[in-house]
Amino acid sequence: MTSSAHLLSALTTPAIILDRQRLEANCKRMAQRAAQAGVQLRPHLKTAKCADVARIATAGQFGGITVSTIAELAYFLDAGFRDMTYAVGIVPSKMPAIERLIAQGARITVVLDSLKAAEDIAGHGGTPVPVLIEIDCGGHRAGVAAESEALIAIAERIDAAPGLTLQGVLTHAGHSYHAADEATRRQIAMAERDAAVRAAQRIRAAGLPCETVSIGSTPTALTDVPLDGVTEIRPGVYVFFDLSQARLGVCSVDDIAVSVLATVIGHHREAGHLLVDAGALALSKDISANEHDPHIGYGLVCDIEGRPIDGLHVAEVHQEHGFVRGADGAPPFDRLPVGTQVRILPNHACMTVAPYREYNVLDAASETLSQWSKTYGW
Amino acid sequence: MTSSAHLLSALTTPAIILDRQRLEANCKRMAQRAAQAGVQLRPHLKTAKCADVARIATAGQFGGITVSTIAELAYFLDAGFRDMTYAVGIVPSKMPAIERLIAQGARITVVLDSLKAAEDIAGHGGTPVPVLIEIDCGGHRAGVAAESEALIAIAERIDAAPGLTLQGVLTHAGHSYHAADEATRRQIAMAERDAAVRAAQRIRAAGLPCETVSIGSTPTALTDVPLDGVTEIRPGVYVFFDLSQARLGVCSVDDIAVSVLATVIGHHREAGHLLVDAGALALSKDISANEHDPHIGYGLVCDIEGRPIDGLHVAEVHQEHGFVRGADGAPPFDRLPVGTQVRILPNHACMTVAPYREYNVLDAASETLSQWSKTYGW
Repeated sequence: MTSSAHLLSALTTPAIILDRQRLEANCKRMAQRAAQAGVQLRPHLKTAKCADVARIATAGQFGGITVSTIAELAYFLDAGFRDMTYAVGIVPSKMPAIERLIAQGARITVVLDSLKAAEDIAGHGGTPVPVLIEIDCGGHRAGVAAESEALIAIAERIDAAPGLTLQGVLTHAGHSYHAADEATRRQIAMAERDAAVRAAQRIRAAGLPCETVSIGSTPTALTDVPLDGVTEIRPGVYVFFDLSQARLGVCSVDDIAVSVLATVIGHHREAGHLLVDAGALALSKDISANEHDPHIGYGLVCDIEGRPIDGLHVAEVHQEHGFVRGADGAPPFDRLPVGTQVRILPNHACMTVAPYREYNVLDAASETLSQWSKTYGW
Repeated sequence: MTSSAHLLSALTTPAIILDRQRLEANCKRMAQRAAQAGVQLRPHLKTAKCADVARIATAGQFGGITVSTIAELAYFLDAGFRDMTYAVGIVPSKMPAIERLIAQGARITVVLDSLKAAEDIAGHGGTPVPVLIEIDCGGHRAGVAAESEALIAIAERIDAAPGLTLQGVLTHAGHSYHAADEATRRQIAMAERDAAVRAAQRIRAAGLPCETVSIGSTPTALTDVPLDGVTEIRPGVYVFFDLSQARLGVCSVDDIAVSVLATVIGHHREAGHLLVDAGALALSKDISANEHDPHIGYGLVCDIEGRPIDGLHVAEVHQEHGFVRGADGAPPFDRLPVGTQVRILPNHACMTVAPYREYNVLDAASETLSQWSKTYGW
């Protein structure tokens, strides 16, 4: 039995395995990209939800992070992170929680994209809250257009509100997750940059402040597009990577730092599958990597060392059951007897790791396994 | 503002709202079915993961429950539930945890479907563990066929093992979730019953004990098929119901007891959607009800009272963002300004509620809102 197989054999499955060397290499790569582009790195911790990961991702950086839930704000403040951008459109019902965290020492920047939202929080009390205006850079999820009249109207409203500080603009090229090739990904990266920079120029031309120009998604951050005019990037999933990112060409499968440890709990030779104890909750129902490769299903099955077993994937899931098949049908039953541990690479790491209580961190350098706790829920 | 709108307005979104009256009515309905069929009800708590729900679901019953994770076993034992069936194929690596819980007073019944699995746990120490043999009743997920030679070989192996007690047989008609009409659902219910009863007959004919004949899924349990020869049913999702069950005709939309409270956080008139702060994690990526109705997406959007707004659904999700559209395109922006709270009915309640920390229980009778904690993860 190899060292990692020995370390993992005592774990109850399903469990998340985090490869420390890969995590560190992924973080180093993004730090180098930020340095080369001359921008600050404010990692999005909605992926990892973990203070230990956040410390590695922010090492050598200015220390700011991005989050997407109130639970994450509270958790990361408790862990010593003070400068946080809450990157989901703010509504008044969340301001009491945010004001409490500010009173405890947090500097929380909020995001909005409408006059109504600015109006709704304009009168909040206490320390003025920095606000970023969300810009639509082509993803059409949220945000106002960089050339819109609304942009200036919102900026003026924020600037005039005693409870708010106009901090700048923010955009997110979520549509880069669907880029079919690298040329498309670079185009989206340029559009993301241009939308944010143009919006900032217009705000400044109107005589208003716009210190922060924040962009970011892992696929767009990891291009070589120059980022002149941008002040920070907010990628998230790069700390772990996943099959979706590998299929986009943003990383290789060997860069994926998280996998779900599962156990073979049954053979169903007549039906042509074997069962593992990782199903819809343990893997998530995300099948995004299948957009580029139909033989991924709910995840690629690897041996205990993390090496993919050719063609083997989770073809179907029930709540706590996964059905494993080969690309051409039956899985190698004899190689994987009942009781065998396997590791499953996720389609979308953010979805898969979210409900777990902790990471089981495998450190090949020290040949140790340790646990890092994480937050979850809302 | 109505009473429930007033009670919910203070909650931070996303949050799960649980309608106590509907929960109680759903539990009463299943209890009546079990009584009418003359079988015991051992509710599957993998859905609710909550002791308060378990107490309502087992009220007036013998008190046994079904679970699907080791975390649930520990949580429910701590809450006073001792008789638990762990309904995921057992492997040796889980036996230490199970033995610890047995030492603390639990009676845990395990499930397996192969000679190898029986062999692997045959020699475990401590109190003998009751074992159910899983039978495939046509779902082809797990289990041996009722007529197979393997069934008797496994039964003999369990009976001969000093550490095990042959308790009976178990089956689950998971394929009933895809039944297109009631006639098909009844057929599956009969096949589920027949497979379990036939397997039990064969085991007894071989001179071996088979006290428990356990079947169950919500769609098959809620037919009028006679259950002669069956001793217990293990349905789970009926406590809450969901859009999948409604589309199957097992319940009406008005019976669904859980919804996700969300807030409108943006309007994107150009793109034709409004944004809510409930996305892929808050709703899950389960789209099972779309099998029967393509305009459900990731959930149906209701007003704060829980009344569906005609055609409005969550058409797309990102991690913490949901895109709401109408059946024919744009949503009613003017009716749902930024800041409005809505309630979203889930496709599959088991998937949606899993990652939450608690239920916000709305009791219309007492006009109160209270919190019930729950377990999560593994």
